[in-house]
Amino acid sequence: MLSKTKNGRSFLGRFECGDDLLSVLTDFCKQNQIKMGVFNLIGAVQKAKMGYYNQEKKEYVDCINLDKKLEISACMGNISLKDNEIMVHAHITLSDYDGKTYGGHLRPGTIIFAAEFFIQELSGEQLIRGKDKKTGLPLWEP
Amino acid sequence: MLSKTKNGRSFLGRFECGDDLLSVLTDFCKQNQIKMGVFNLIGAVQKAKMGYYNQEKKEYVDCINLDKKLEISACMGNISLKDNEIMVHAHITLSDYDGKTYGGHLRPGTIIFAAEFFIQELSGEQLIRGKDKKTGLPLWEP
Amino acid sequence: MLSKTKNGRSFLGRFECGDDLLSVLTDFCKQNQIKMGVFNLIGAVQKAKMGYYNQEKKEYVDCINLDKKLEISACMGNISLKDNEIMVHAHITLSDYDGKTYGGHLRPGTIIFAAEFFIQELSGEQLIRGKDKKTGLPLWEP
Repeated sequence: MLSKTKNGRSFLGRFECGDDLLSVLTDFCKQNQIKMGVFNLIGAVQKAKMGYYNQEKKEYVDCINLDKKLEISACMGNISLKDNEIMVHAHITLSDYDGKTYGGHLRPGTIIFAAEFFIQELSGEQLIRGKDKKTGLPLWEP
Repeated sequence: MLSKTKNGRSFLGRFECGDDLLSVLTDFCKQNQIKMGVFNLIGAVQKAKMGYYNQEKKEYVDCINLDKKLEISACMGNISLKDNEIMVHAHITLSDYDGKTYGGHLRPGTIIFAAEFFIQELSGEQLIRGKDKKTGLPLWEP
Repeated sequence: MLSKTKNGRSFLGRFECGDDLLSVLTDFCKQNQIKMGVFNLIGAVQKAKMGYYNQEKKEYVDCINLDKKLEISACMGNISLKDNEIMVHAHITLSDYDGKTYGGHLRPGTIIFAAEFFIQELSGEQLIRGKDKKTGLPLWEP
């Protein structure tokens, strides 16, 4: 669950208005075969869907649905493999007209207005997610 | 609107108490001729001014004025060119004594109490901002 | 108070459920002798303790105690030396079931549920913290 990494390729760019943020992030990594890395991103969304992990029940709840236009104050996360597929794990902080903020685990259904990303590919021992018994989460395996 | 980048110079440092955060970030990049890059920053501010983009009217509103002392929970963004000038695009999350948070697009008028930054210069195809018809925003051109 | 840095080692990994976030981050840096660097981290906590700096009284207040399970929407900061010891300076944004967010200066007592980090070691002129008269904070010395 620790990889001593080296910087690989890196990418500065933006995604299109109307795209699903998590899908397009994942597709970009798949198309470019980025199997391990970190990223951050700012921009704005037309609406947002975020999850929260119920630590007792050990399950994600898609409980945060924001049907309004918001700034992406911060979005960050990592890229690794799960079930032999490239998986993006992203958390996001959003803010509205009044500066009020909302945060959570980024879920499909968050639609981009503008999204500027930086992705740093990492090489080194590949981190792979598998079900962690203690938390129930798909965490990097030992 | 995508640049395959390589890491250039990098800078870890701090800005002075009393300085305008967006101005001093921009000045630092201009003085060091950082034409493309990403950064993040933590610290505290004496007061803050943030904008929100009205997606229907396609205009920024300087609607969030916080005349109080706040922690910078997170600040991140990128550096590129617009109208042949170096431009910093930064989003910020702030928090108060009660832990209440505020977020938005960083605007002039946000005054530093303390600000510790890391800037990673990027080389590669230069990204340049121009008016995007769909969103009205100055986004990286194709 | 400015270091022109070069990327050193980097580490992508996770910490264990039940560990104190600030302690384990600091221990990791000490064990690996990371004397200068930056990091970011996402995950979740079982409870959180954050501080706010009182800019008039020039003292930290451990005023934000959240005895509930929260997502780590964003956590970022830097690593440098203070009193010849490796010191981690981290700010954190947390969010609850309703997407409500909380932010501040990370303090001991924030207990991990899951925590995925990326640490970038930096080489170059070592930044050292010492008491800054103007702010009362332990800032990087000139």
